[in-house]
Amino acid sequence: MKILAIDLGGTHATCALVEDREILARETILLPESESFANTLSALAEPLTRLHSSALAGAIGFGFCGLVDSRHTRIADTNGKYTDAVSIDLSHWAKEKFSLPLRLENDARLALLGEFHAGAAQGETDVFMFTLGTGIGGVAMMNGQLLRGKHDQAGVLGGHIPVSLSNRRCTCGGLGCAEAEASGWALPGVAKDWPGFASSALAQRKINFENLFACADGNDKVSRELVDHCLRVWGAAAVAAINSFDPELLVYGGGVMKSADAILPYIQNYVRDNAWTPWGAVRVRAAQLGNDAALLGVVPLFEQESPVVR
Amino acid sequence: MKILAIDLGGTHATCALVEDREILARETILLPESESFANTLSALAEPLTRLHSSALAGAIGFGFCGLVDSRHTRIADTNGKYTDAVSIDLSHWAKEKFSLPLRLENDARLALLGEFHAGAAQGETDVFMFTLGTGIGGVAMMNGQLLRGKHDQAGVLGGHIPVSLSNRRCTCGGLGCAEAEASGWALPGVAKDWPGFASSALAQRKINFENLFACADGNDKVSRELVDHCLRVWGAAAVAAINSFDPELLVYGGGVMKSADAILPYIQNYVRDNAWTPWGAVRVRAAQLGNDAALLGVVPLFEQESPVVR
Repeated sequence: MKILAIDLGGTHATCALVEDREILARETILLPESESFANTLSALAEPLTRLHSSALAGAIGFGFCGLVDSRHTRIADTNGKYTDAVSIDLSHWAKEKFSLPLRLENDARLALLGEFHAGAAQGETDVFMFTLGTGIGGVAMMNGQLLRGKHDQAGVLGGHIPVSLSNRRCTCGGLGCAEAEASGWALPGVAKDWPGFASSALAQRKINFENLFACADGNDKVSRELVDHCLRVWGAAAVAAINSFDPELLVYGGGVMKSADAILPYIQNYVRDNAWTPWGAVRVRAAQLGNDAALLGVVPLFEQESPVVR
Repeated sequence: MKILAIDLGGTHATCALVEDREILARETILLPESESFANTLSALAEPLTRLHSSALAGAIGFGFCGLVDSRHTRIADTNGKYTDAVSIDLSHWAKEKFSLPLRLENDARLALLGEFHAGAAQGETDVFMFTLGTGIGGVAMMNGQLLRGKHDQAGVLGGHIPVSLSNRRCTCGGLGCAEAEASGWALPGVAKDWPGFASSALAQRKINFENLFACADGNDKVSRELVDHCLRVWGAAAVAAINSFDPELLVYGGGVMKSADAILPYIQNYVRDNAWTPWGAVRVRAAQLGNDAALLGVVPLFEQESPVVR
């Protein structure tokens, strides 16, 4: 079956036609600057129609960058963005616009499904995937199925596990979340609060992970300390995931993985020294599919447990 | 069916004969000071034989204070105690000694099963239970079943989720675990490191939670700060559990709950303010069964998923 895949990000959306392990066609659009999810859906309709007419698809898989209740095909929380999203019936939209069934999933969960289907987690059953980027995604798969829980929120908030007793407030409302301590959006605030920041090499540049790792490589002391802080946060989040969900493999994706050479060996050592796994060692591996993961993830999405309401 | 229940603690063990929601008889023994689990089993045989002869039991439920692989009826890790325990075949022991089938479970999991069967979690399906005592137990039930995972270690290490970036080493090997920051065994170390401790009221007493809460009630500044620290640690651990396992109810047991009046309202407020639950509010409740919980937990234990090997 060919499936129309939508990966809705913060500023861009990618629509694609996928089949098995292949992306047959794709279009990326810049999203309208709007608080309205209805407007965003309108903007998606055009590329979807083109892709659908090129080769008839049998379903739509929708990846959303927020909390979803996939069993009821509802957006549960948008973290402040798209105030109208929780009231929109996506199944109705898909049926009316394309006469297709639709399944909705959180984008980080779709990325794990994609890596499970065609990437770094193929053949695995118990995996946790972190996506280190503007935010931190953290998703659990147990026994080949996404963990869901009573309100579809289990095993999908790996970036929002508190790892620090700091009073740094996260966008989710929590304190000391991994995402509030070491993500793309949090880094400027963490850096500016760091002792000695004003005279560091990083203060001369735009504060992002690429520049942070470059300055740390150049032996800038504050940058080195900030990298150590971020590594420790990601290490603690990894231990939290292992001690919670008992995976055999951690997969790391997201833009920050451009610095995988500095990150993965640290994580591997950290979980060996700190996770409680008398059965053996958790493996640590880079994701393989990049932005394709969430698009390809719609294929196994239709093989996971069915929604309660379609 | 009557069941012989064993709750093996650090210094004492309680053996009991249980049926449905009732403890028909019990004996508590002081354990021999021995590193040998074989010796401990010998010490248990006598009270078990007495209980068994008083009214024939149909099975044995064994609660162990360490990591177990209940699906294979094996002790997985004893955290340094009982060096021979991982090599002992408990099913064989039960069959030879009592001609009874045996199921093994972690003691914190049994306590949750007990509260689920006959206490504070009756009628619930998605619950997380913390046991605040010498250590911190933290156990997840999802959809009426204990969460288990690939190596039977999922959802059972709620005390060993890192909540602090401190370098405080836990007995599990990890850094900054909730248990290493705010448990009975950790409290003396945390207190002695606290600025101003030497001149505090607490320094004049044995350092335990009872004295800590008493000194804090007496407005001792350091004790007040230490209580705040512990509450924050327990609050962060609660958020970690909620954002990981999506429960509707948190249940709190263990000896520290003598100060429930100071703890439960804090936790209720903390999770309301910090956990990401757009569906509603997680309830917080005290356990009801005390030390009976783990004994009564053997009843539903025999209704949970079967072990792979008996």
